[in-house]
Amino acid sequence: LTVRIAIDAMGGDDAPASIIAGALVAARHLQIGLLLVGARDPIERQLSRHPGVTSLDIDILDTPERVDMAEPAAVALRRKPRASIRAAAEAVRGGRAAALFSAGHTGASVMAAHAAFGRLPGVDRPALATIIPTRERPAVLLDVGATVECRPQHLVQFAIMGAAYARVALGCEEPRVGLLSVGEEESKGNDLTREAHQFLKSAPIRFAGNIEGRDIYAGQADVIVCDGFTGNITLKVSEGLVDTVETLLHEELSATFGTRVGYLLSRQAYRRFRKRLDYSEYGGAPLLGLNGLCIVGHGRSSPKAVRNAVAMAARAVSDGLLHRLAREVSAHSMH
Amino acid sequence: LTVRIAIDAMGGDDAPASIIAGALVAARHLQIGLLLVGARDPIERQLSRHPGVTSLDIDILDTPERVDMAEPAAVALRRKPRASIRAAAEAVRGGRAAALFSAGHTGASVMAAHAAFGRLPGVDRPALATIIPTRERPAVLLDVGATVECRPQHLVQFAIMGAAYARVALGCEEPRVGLLSVGEEESKGNDLTREAHQFLKSAPIRFAGNIEGRDIYAGQADVIVCDGFTGNITLKVSEGLVDTVETLLHEELSATFGTRVGYLLSRQAYRRFRKRLDYSEYGGAPLLGLNGLCIVGHGRSSPKAVRNAVAMAARAVSDGLLHRLAREVSAHSMH
Repeated sequence: LTVRIAIDAMGGDDAPASIIAGALVAARHLQIGLLLVGARDPIERQLSRHPGVTSLDIDILDTPERVDMAEPAAVALRRKPRASIRAAAEAVRGGRAAALFSAGHTGASVMAAHAAFGRLPGVDRPALATIIPTRERPAVLLDVGATVECRPQHLVQFAIMGAAYARVALGCEEPRVGLLSVGEEESKGNDLTREAHQFLKSAPIRFAGNIEGRDIYAGQADVIVCDGFTGNITLKVSEGLVDTVETLLHEELSATFGTRVGYLLSRQAYRRFRKRLDYSEYGGAPLLGLNGLCIVGHGRSSPKAVRNAVAMAARAVSDGLLHRLAREVSAHSMH
Repeated sequence: LTVRIAIDAMGGDDAPASIIAGALVAARHLQIGLLLVGARDPIERQLSRHPGVTSLDIDILDTPERVDMAEPAAVALRRKPRASIRAAAEAVRGGRAAALFSAGHTGASVMAAHAAFGRLPGVDRPALATIIPTRERPAVLLDVGATVECRPQHLVQFAIMGAAYARVALGCEEPRVGLLSVGEEESKGNDLTREAHQFLKSAPIRFAGNIEGRDIYAGQADVIVCDGFTGNITLKVSEGLVDTVETLLHEELSATFGTRVGYLLSRQAYRRFRKRLDYSEYGGAPLLGLNGLCIVGHGRSSPKAVRNAVAMAARAVSDGLLHRLAREVSAHSMH
């Protein structure tokens, strides 16, 4: 039995080309079924560029509209009832696919999934959970952009969901949960984190206290909780900085003949290092807290990132992620 | 005529040793006078470890108390009227020194400086402004931790002060001011940034719109404005990531003989690259918006960072930073 993933073929900076290219690799190598959602003509044009597509399990759901990056999510979804992201989410709700993948407008993806799936009992707001590398082992950072305006109890719910996700995705049995703040002491932070800190002390998690920005990559916590605005900035600043480090290092290394030799010799090492910090290795962030599976990809998703995100979606289905999250959340009274 | 800087000798992870070591280098090489504020005994013990101190222009202001990192700032300052940070700020107000440097508890430093100096007319909240490297040229990021809870008009005031600081410190005549948010479009962000965006469009600055986390190191703006919580996380995440990149690269480069050779050959390049990203090159962050000069250092300040921060404080005095800020702020009605 194949797992089928609904894919918003129209979402992402290089859609549909890079989305379809990546999804096809997943379909081919992992026996995943695809429901490509978007305008039929450009989708078929892209498919025709790849050989051997007819042997794969691919359906197309033809939708004439799409949400553009510049549109406010709520307005766009109201005005475009046949937008690809909305049709894709509804196809998952209707059982035509087991999970949704979108690399398009994050706000619209969250809103469409929320509307189609509804929330898990006990959850007030969904959260996007991404896996970040640390010096020790990978960790879960959430929310990275689903809920930009949070109240303290939302952060408590994120902590419980993040711990459940760390158990499923990272095999981390007793994840240490840290609250991202501006100082380790509980008196430090903004109103949101100071109040959340008090709730987290009595929440059914292994609370490790506040964690500062400089410690998240040191591996001091397995789950790092913050509001969606802070988490998104944290993730994007990290990506931009890694790119900048690469550029600056390259400049410095090209400056002299001696270091150019050094660069050539150590190129293999760079590649391995870069891979450990490359978000596209992880591919996507699951949206936790909804009664359905949705993986959100980066707007700049490469085919490799799309392939990995679609694989992640299929694995989430076969791991029973949704059921396990629901069970953990309902076991802990969060209200 | 020497410029004298008041130094909270008791503030910082390795105080007073590293604070005094760094301040003495500045005193020796830049003919800066020091007012060392703290407990006389440990200060004199540290001074005795450095040769040739008697030829330098050094005063000690003996204060029995200090604020510890774990104390809530307001409580500590109320309970400890003779805390070193408070005495140092009052010494500047009283004219015994021209500026204040503290690498101690940031909240307590901000609060003590605020109480001693008062605000510039037209400013409601102070902001810590740090200089960050980008691929193009250095930029100003503010607030990095003085005001963790902001309203939209505070961000507008930070934008005006940040632009004035970029003119003075970076010689950037028409700085482009970006608002740190989770999307380039003005509809994206949290309540704070969406509202601030509207005000900034009509503020007397060259507003470059929202800027995403991944673009701050690309050099897309000369001044990046955000609330103190977000700015502090941004700065600390960056520091932690640079450390982690160094560790991971070193691990990868040590893995094989070939890359070890590459590492040796490119060591000089690493050193230059690391220096471009090292906060201690900049040393400290001036607190903007108060009617007096205060430079806040990193809690983990090395002697080199302290030396550079004390030099920055002296330069701020000789550049007339305070006067120039006051003039720019009053020229723009911010209320």
